[in-house]
Amino acid sequence: MKPDRADPDGAIASAAKRVSNWGRWGADDVRGTMNFLTEEKRRTAARLVRTGASYSLSQSFDMEGPQRGWRRRTNPVHTMLDTGTDAAAGAQGFPHGIGGADDVISMPLQCSTQWDGLGHIFDHGVAWNGRRADQVVTSLGDGVTGIETVADPIAGRGVLLDVGRVLGMHGELPDGFAITEEHLEATIAAQGPRSAVGQGDIVVVRTGQLTRARRDGWGEYAGGPAPGLSFTTVDWLHRAEIAAVATDTWGFEVRPNEFDHAFQPLHQVAIPHIGLFIGEMWDPDALAAACAEDGIYEFFVVAAPLKVTGAVGAPLNPIAVR
Amino acid sequence: MKPDRADPDGAIASAAKRVSNWGRWGADDVRGTMNFLTEEKRRTAARLVRTGASYSLSQSFDMEGPQRGWRRRTNPVHTMLDTGTDAAAGAQGFPHGIGGADDVISMPLQCSTQWDGLGHIFDHGVAWNGRRADQVVTSLGDGVTGIETVADPIAGRGVLLDVGRVLGMHGELPDGFAITEEHLEATIAAQGPRSAVGQGDIVVVRTGQLTRARRDGWGEYAGGPAPGLSFTTVDWLHRAEIAAVATDTWGFEVRPNEFDHAFQPLHQVAIPHIGLFIGEMWDPDALAAACAEDGIYEFFVVAAPLKVTGAVGAPLNPIAVR
Amino acid sequence: MKPDRADPDGAIASAAKRVSNWGRWGADDVRGTMNFLTEEKRRTAARLVRTGASYSLSQSFDMEGPQRGWRRRTNPVHTMLDTGTDAAAGAQGFPHGIGGADDVISMPLQCSTQWDGLGHIFDHGVAWNGRRADQVVTSLGDGVTGIETVADPIAGRGVLLDVGRVLGMHGELPDGFAITEEHLEATIAAQGPRSAVGQGDIVVVRTGQLTRARRDGWGEYAGGPAPGLSFTTVDWLHRAEIAAVATDTWGFEVRPNEFDHAFQPLHQVAIPHIGLFIGEMWDPDALAAACAEDGIYEFFVVAAPLKVTGAVGAPLNPIAVR
Amino acid sequence: MKPDRADPDGAIASAAKRVSNWGRWGADDVRGTMNFLTEEKRRTAARLVRTGASYSLSQSFDMEGPQRGWRRRTNPVHTMLDTGTDAAAGAQGFPHGIGGADDVISMPLQCSTQWDGLGHIFDHGVAWNGRRADQVVTSLGDGVTGIETVADPIAGRGVLLDVGRVLGMHGELPDGFAITEEHLEATIAAQGPRSAVGQGDIVVVRTGQLTRARRDGWGEYAGGPAPGLSFTTVDWLHRAEIAAVATDTWGFEVRPNEFDHAFQPLHQVAIPHIGLFIGEMWDPDALAAACAEDGIYEFFVVAAPLKVTGAVGAPLNPIAVR
Repeated sequence: MKPDRADPDGAIASAAKRVSNWGRWGADDVRGTMNFLTEEKRRTAARLVRTGASYSLSQSFDMEGPQRGWRRRTNPVHTMLDTGTDAAAGAQGFPHGIGGADDVISMPLQCSTQWDGLGHIFDHGVAWNGRRADQVVTSLGDGVTGIETVADPIAGRGVLLDVGRVLGMHGELPDGFAITEEHLEATIAAQGPRSAVGQGDIVVVRTGQLTRARRDGWGEYAGGPAPGLSFTTVDWLHRAEIAAVATDTWGFEVRPNEFDHAFQPLHQVAIPHIGLFIGEMWDPDALAAACAEDGIYEFFVVAAPLKVTGAVGAPLNPIAVR
Repeated sequence: MKPDRADPDGAIASAAKRVSNWGRWGADDVRGTMNFLTEEKRRTAARLVRTGASYSLSQSFDMEGPQRGWRRRTNPVHTMLDTGTDAAAGAQGFPHGIGGADDVISMPLQCSTQWDGLGHIFDHGVAWNGRRADQVVTSLGDGVTGIETVADPIAGRGVLLDVGRVLGMHGELPDGFAITEEHLEATIAAQGPRSAVGQGDIVVVRTGQLTRARRDGWGEYAGGPAPGLSFTTVDWLHRAEIAAVATDTWGFEVRPNEFDHAFQPLHQVAIPHIGLFIGEMWDPDALAAACAEDGIYEFFVVAAPLKVTGAVGAPLNPIAVR
Repeated sequence: MKPDRADPDGAIASAAKRVSNWGRWGADDVRGTMNFLTEEKRRTAARLVRTGASYSLSQSFDMEGPQRGWRRRTNPVHTMLDTGTDAAAGAQGFPHGIGGADDVISMPLQCSTQWDGLGHIFDHGVAWNGRRADQVVTSLGDGVTGIETVADPIAGRGVLLDVGRVLGMHGELPDGFAITEEHLEATIAAQGPRSAVGQGDIVVVRTGQLTRARRDGWGEYAGGPAPGLSFTTVDWLHRAEIAAVATDTWGFEVRPNEFDHAFQPLHQVAIPHIGLFIGEMWDPDALAAACAEDGIYEFFVVAAPLKVTGAVGAPLNPIAVR
Repeated sequence: MKPDRADPDGAIASAAKRVSNWGRWGADDVRGTMNFLTEEKRRTAARLVRTGASYSLSQSFDMEGPQRGWRRRTNPVHTMLDTGTDAAAGAQGFPHGIGGADDVISMPLQCSTQWDGLGHIFDHGVAWNGRRADQVVTSLGDGVTGIETVADPIAGRGVLLDVGRVLGMHGELPDGFAITEEHLEATIAAQGPRSAVGQGDIVVVRTGQLTRARRDGWGEYAGGPAPGLSFTTVDWLHRAEIAAVATDTWGFEVRPNEFDHAFQPLHQVAIPHIGLFIGEMWDPDALAAACAEDGIYEFFVVAAPLKVTGAVGAPLNPIAVR
């Protein structure tokens, strides 16, 4: 059922009530759906490795990235503290001919391939598990659900749902395409039974928008129209008991959003109420090509965030091993 | 045989000649010893997962880190672009009650748990595979061996050599302790045959210095005296055909270095000549406790660097799965 | 009268009541005591230029600065985007032999010579002129009293009160020395009638602590014990109707503060209640030497903050012209 | 005489020979044309203050600035370390009700209103006064002519040459308009004898491009077409013995440059050969309005760069007092 376009508040409140996981893992929980990814799930997932081929699911971190300043998100600025030209010019002053290069980076943690942490989004001033947002995230960072709380566990079964390939033209969904539960199920059906999604899985949804941006330029990739998950998938995301979901788009959910005056309504339910980890700006293309070749879309994935204390999100280099 | 303390130049030149891998993987090679980590090695390594327990080998990235400004290396500065206090104060202006938090980081890529890339160290102005340093690393970064060239492959068999536990007092080697080939072999022998090191392995050497710093404070952890690999292990590092080696110390090799007037001589051979990937400031302690408990020191490890284009090193969150 | 050491709250509340300038320049005012610095004052001040000698009152902005991480304040990190070594190595690719160097800085705005803006300090959640702090300074910066509101006017008569020279040993006050109104008046008396302080003046108080730090090392300069203004000068600061006051210390007021459990109580009255601009970490030493030589301690000073939109403080290079 | 469009190399070499100031102030000189700004000049200049009105000539430093990433130049990123929302939420933990806000900035030193230092541009690997570029500017910064060498002196007579107003339509020169010596002299003539330019002056040339950008949006302001000084003014710039010259444009000289394949040829002569300080992205509009009103275009100006050790350029807030 499609929600009333004119009433995002009602739709969000209703969905939040239906799918809330508050208290499910205790009042002190800080890991949300990552609780579904148990040692047993991880052990089983490791057995999915068949060929040993590994794939980075990360975009590049550099000034050629998609950011255009929205919400003061910029592309990374990478500068050098020492260089080979310095070393060659004899400017370093080290003994016995050693020379070195060092570097520095300055970047938003949300600038490229990343996880949204549980402190990234609030619903009416309330964060995951019912905590007050102003008691969770101050200028000092997220003192409760900082990304360091999930530094260890994010390794398990990955499933690529290549919706772009199954339902798109030439492998790409158009901007504004809302991926519904039916689309997800159709993709699973098309990919075969080994693509079934289960508890603790890390689901990677490929829309093909990144493929398009790579070919045509970033354009409005950051914050503009995009294919993505429909608000209506909120129940599926909850019911499936997945540990996390990631897409190849800037904002995970379909844009423009499916309400008249709205901003990322699915985030508003998924993060603070479901406690779901959302990955954005991942690059599944190389992996997708391999999956398409042998028809196997499940793999072992390690997607460990950079362990930045108090971060509300974190860059990472997710590795899929098939 | 111990090298002549007064002649680092001679010792380095001689070692470089003995262990050079230049040309071994072709003139265009940019991956060095990572070539040893094949799909087959990775496939076999995945089978080491027995319990499904996962361990982050990363230190925390925050202002409480060890850096003191040496070579302008600082601890990370993490600031917020939006906070929960802003959201709670109604200062964000979003529709339907959504609020958000975003963050920014500014840090040296060598500030905490990291890989040294192949462009990190030069020998007399020459980089890995015999390239001129000033044609590899300029202010624009490493245009040849940037860390993005190994974004995919670093997943394979890990072996923890807990030298601190085997040879130290209370699990810790003293600062200035030079770990020799004999010490490495003694550790392997003590740990048992499953700790044997082979081609393509990622070796994690635990000295216990981080355990000490955690207890006593950082002190001179960054750049000061430390246990670490002896210059004399250069032949072992080459012969073992490992893909990479990492330690829990700031600088991998023993400090003070084993020459009268020297700075990181083992780096000068290992990186530009062997093409070896070196990890520093890793945190193996939780993993080491688990290994000690069941006596199994091999595991599957995914140690993917953040994919920063042109970086001469990169932060990461290495994950060991047992 | 000395305030009760055990009752900072009472002393602050009482002082705030006595010296409040709220509403003095209208409910919309954003410039506080800078209103005292009129065009007429500035015109008169320009006539103080006699020799034409100019003095920077700025400390250096670099990694050798005093910051030690307190409140996440670090020293500036200055890196290069392009260098002369790159240019010389032919790595820049420009036509007709042009080469260039560019640079980047990352720093707290409070890391070195600076102005505290009116949004820098709050009293019980209230900012200058009685505004609610959470409606003035969010993560987006100071939307009301940002330092850009005083980008133009800070040029006028400067008076150096060299308390260190008049009352100290060898020109330096000891750490913990509380400069009272009597000390200020004694300094003026010793320096002569041209040192009288009046409406709209920019007063520079030299304690000599920076001279000591320059000689002995920074030690605890940032946040540690220091000579500085006594809390009891709050009435003098108000009554004198000065535009601004600056010191050569990290924190302007005496440290340890004059209450048992306190943090910068004079700031808490001076900024939000008087609306006073406070300069910190200035370097008056070269100027002070010149003043001592000819006995003239008044001068024309231009102390324009870097025009950072929304900044609650700003670095600057104050220039005194005698 | 117009230079041959096809031969920038020849034109640059010839001009460099004609206007070189190498050795003029000794082999060790690091201040170039700033030597023309003597105490006497400064003393006389202070007498120009008639009304006491002060004008900031600085653009705003924020994310709404003109930079688009060219040469990795970005707009400033200003983030908060503490906020009023934190203080109001009781999240700061200070005693007696004090609250505070602090901030951080990360920016290229060339991102907005700035001085080009003498280490900013090289001619065939040679910097000001004939020094080798690779012995002046390494990754550590400019170790010889860093901007700190002119922290004190930049205060003197300013002259606004409002070429836009005198020769433009509605006060603005079109992009691509090359301002020649004749245009400069015509502007001086139109403004009257008090606009005559002399030794040690700081000349501010207004083209009106910033006025246009303020009205129409930045567009290609950073690095695109612009009015500016013709390459042919190089002799005037030398002969006039001015201390510095600044414009309201991104790049000072006319763009596209006046050669077929060229990049900032006037810089290549003016900085390394004349030793001239060039200001870019200044905002003269408020000052220009005041000058137009009373017909007086000379003033006292203090244009002190932020004292960043080793910087090849520096942001500043220039203040004109009339």
